[in-house]
Amino acid sequence: MSAAPKANPPIRTLLGPGPSPVNPRVLEALALPVVGHLDPKFLEIMDQSMAMLREVFQTQNRLALPMSGTGSAGMETCFVNLVEPGDAVLIGVNGVFGTRMVDVAQRCGAQVDTVEAEWGAAIDAQKFKATLEKKKYKLAALVHAETSTGVLQPLDDIAKLVHESGALLLVDAVTSLGGAPVRVDELGIDACYSGTQKCLGCPPGLSPITFSERAVEVVRRRKTKVQSWYLDLSMIEKYWGSERVYHHTAPISMNYGLHEALRLVLEEGLDKAWQRHRQVHEVFVREMRKLELEPAVAESIRAPMINAVKIPEGVDDPKIRQRLYDDFNIEIGAGLGPLKGKIWRVGLMGHGARMEKSRSRASERNEDRGSRRDDRYLRSSILDPRRPDSSIQPRDPLAIAIKR
Amino acid sequence: MSAAPKANPPIRTLLGPGPSPVNPRVLEALALPVVGHLDPKFLEIMDQSMAMLREVFQTQNRLALPMSGTGSAGMETCFVNLVEPGDAVLIGVNGVFGTRMVDVAQRCGAQVDTVEAEWGAAIDAQKFKATLEKKKYKLAALVHAETSTGVLQPLDDIAKLVHESGALLLVDAVTSLGGAPVRVDELGIDACYSGTQKCLGCPPGLSPITFSERAVEVVRRRKTKVQSWYLDLSMIEKYWGSERVYHHTAPISMNYGLHEALRLVLEEGLDKAWQRHRQVHEVFVREMRKLELEPAVAESIRAPMINAVKIPEGVDDPKIRQRLYDDFNIEIGAGLGPLKGKIWRVGLMGHGARMEKSRSRASERNEDRGSRRDDRYLRSSILDPRRPDSSIQPRDPLAIAIKR
Repeated sequence: MSAAPKANPPIRTLLGPGPSPVNPRVLEALALPVVGHLDPKFLEIMDQSMAMLREVFQTQNRLALPMSGTGSAGMETCFVNLVEPGDAVLIGVNGVFGTRMVDVAQRCGAQVDTVEAEWGAAIDAQKFKATLEKKKYKLAALVHAETSTGVLQPLDDIAKLVHESGALLLVDAVTSLGGAPVRVDELGIDACYSGTQKCLGCPPGLSPITFSERAVEVVRRRKTKVQSWYLDLSMIEKYWGSERVYHHTAPISMNYGLHEALRLVLEEGLDKAWQRHRQVHEVFVREMRKLELEPAVAESIRAPMINAVKIPEGVDDPKIRQRLYDDFNIEIGAGLGPLKGKIWRVGLMGHGARMEKSRSRASERNEDRGSRRDDRYLRSSILDPRRPDSSIQPRDPLAIAIKR
Repeated sequence: MSAAPKANPPIRTLLGPGPSPVNPRVLEALALPVVGHLDPKFLEIMDQSMAMLREVFQTQNRLALPMSGTGSAGMETCFVNLVEPGDAVLIGVNGVFGTRMVDVAQRCGAQVDTVEAEWGAAIDAQKFKATLEKKKYKLAALVHAETSTGVLQPLDDIAKLVHESGALLLVDAVTSLGGAPVRVDELGIDACYSGTQKCLGCPPGLSPITFSERAVEVVRRRKTKVQSWYLDLSMIEKYWGSERVYHHTAPISMNYGLHEALRLVLEEGLDKAWQRHRQVHEVFVREMRKLELEPAVAESIRAPMINAVKIPEGVDDPKIRQRLYDDFNIEIGAGLGPLKGKIWRVGLMGHGARMEKSRSRASERNEDRGSRRDDRYLRSSILDPRRPDSSIQPRDPLAIAIKR
C-alpha cells in the first residue's frame, strides 16, 4: 500500500465536552524542536511546569506533575497508587466519570461502596456522611465537574466529612481545573487529577496530577507493588524529582504544549480565568433562554465550563448536531447514558470561553452587500437567535439548525 | 507566582537511544487544528493510521493501533491484556527492557521464568527451547532490538519453538519498527508493541501495537477483567473499530504526528528505510574504527539503529557526553546498568539515519574565510576524525571531545 493522503483536519469551533479550542501559541509550542527526556533544558521545562501546576492546583504539594496519558490515565494513577487489594473505597456516582471510577477501583481490588445521585444532581453531603459513618474507608472519591451531566459538585462539606472519617480524599478535576477554583490545599484534597484538553486549553494527551504528603506516605507504605508499572508514582517521582532516574521517555512535545498552556493561564491570572468562564457561561444561559432552551442543571450546581441544555420535545438530536458540524463546523456534545437524546453538552472551556469579534454567516452575507457592522459579541452568542441590529435577520447556527 | 519564561529548547542532534530527530513535516502535523475525538475527519485519520501501521508491522491483523502512552504503555498493554493471575510466562532477559517485562508481567500476577543472556549477547535459541520443554507457558516474550545493549535478537528459530510449544509470542519492537524488518505475520508474532520516537521518527507519546486474531481471542476469553482500565483493549478496539464507542479522549495532535510519520515511512518504502538504517550503521562502524573505537556487540547481532560503542580505557564518559552537548548540541546515550561507563549508545534512527549535506564547525570557519566546499557526507560522519579535503583539518566532535 502507499502512504495515506496528508491529514487535513477542518477548523472546528470546539464547543463539545473537550477537546476545547487550542490557543495558537500552544499549537506552536507543540512544534518546538524535540530534545531528549534527560536534556538539561527539558529538565528545566519540567521543573517550571511542576511549579505552574502547583499554582493552578492551588497547592504546595511537592508532587504535582503531568502523567503521560489522558485524564483517564490520571484517574487510574490515583487509584492504582493509593489502593491495595481489599481496601474499602467510597465513591460518589452521578454520571459517567463516577461510574468509571468504580470500575477502575474494582480493577485494583478495592471493596467499593457508592453514594449515588441522579444524573444531573449533585452528591448529597448528608447521604455521604451516613455512609462514611457505617464503615472505615481508606479513600473517598468525587468528581468535581461531571462532564457527562454539567454538574459542579460542592466539595466543602464532603471534604470536611471525609477528613473527619480519616479517609483520603480523591477529586476528579479533569474538566474544572483552570475554569473554576479547585483549592487542593484549602479543601485538603489528597489526590487530584485533571486533563489538558478542557479549561487548560491544551490538546489531549497528558494528565496533571497532584498528591498530598499524606497520600505520598500511603504510597510509600504499600505492602504490594503498584499493579501498573507505567503509572507507578514511586518510580515516576524519581524522574520528575531531583534524582532524574529514567522511567519512561516523557512525551516531549506534549509537555511543551502543556508548559505553554499553563503559561497562558498564569499570564491571565487564575482569578480572571475563573471569572471569564463564569461570565461566558452566564451569557450563554441568557442567550439560550432567548431560544427557549433551558439548562438541564439547577443553577446552584451548574458547572460553568460544561453546559447541559435540555433538548426540546420533538427536536431531532443527531440531525441538529450533524447540521452544526456540516454547515457551521461547530462541535457540541451529545448526552451520554440515561441523558442520551435528552441533553446537549456545550463546553465553553479554556480558549473557547472568551469574548471576541465573531461573525455569523448572515452578517458575512451582509458584508458582501456592503453593510459592514461591528459584530462584537460573545463566542457563546453563536447561539444567539437574532441580531436585531442587522438588516437581514441573522439567526444563530443552533436556531437555524433547529428551525430548518 | 507568575508564568514561567517561554520554553526555548535548543536544536540538538539527537543521536541517543531516542527520541530521534523529527522530520519537520511531523512537527508541522503536530500543530494542525485540533478536532474532536469523534469528529468524522479524525476517524478517517485513525483508519488511515491503522492501515499504515499494518503495513509497517507487516501484518494483516485487524487490531493495529497506537496506544495513548509511550512504548512502556505498549509493553504493559500486551501483558495486562494477555496475562491473568497465575499464568506461566517465559521472558528472554538480556538488557533493561527484558528486565522491565519481567517486572510488568509479575505485576499482572504472572508466574515468570526467564532465559537470560549476558547484556550485549542475544538470547540463545537452544536455551529457550530447553526451558519451553520443561513447562507449559501461556506466553513467551522477547525484545527485538534491546535499546540498552544494541543487540538485534534473531527471532526466526525462537518464534518457531514458541509456536510448537503452543504459547503466544510477544515481541518488543520499540526500537526496531521502521528500521529493520519485524515481520509480524511471517514470524507469527501474536502481540507486538513499538514506540513513535525511534525509527518512526515521531516525538514520543504513542505506542503502536498489533495483536493477532489468536491473541484477540485470548483477550476475549479472559476469566478476569483486564487490571488496567486505561489499557483494556476490549474497550479500546471498540473506539478504533467500527463501533466508535467513546473510551478515552484520544491524543489528537500526537495522532496527527504519527499519521505524518507513517506517511513518511511508506513514501520512502519500508525496504528502503531498512536499507538506509543498515547503510548508515555500516558507515558509522567504519568511521568509529578510524577513531579506534570498537562496537560492543558481535557483528551478526548488531542492531543497526542503536549502536553500542566500547568506551576506551581511561576516557571520562560523562565528561565526553557533556562536551558533545555543550560544544556540538549532540546527544548520545550513556550505558545503563552493568554497561554504565562501559559503552556509549549512538542511535541512528528514523530521520536521524540519513545522508545529508552537513557542515562541521571547522568547515563553517573555512567558509567564513571564503573557501566554500561541498560537504556532503553522512550524518554519522559527524564522528569522522578528519576530513582530508579541507584546508583546516576538521575533527569530528567525538574526536575533539576525547582528545581535548
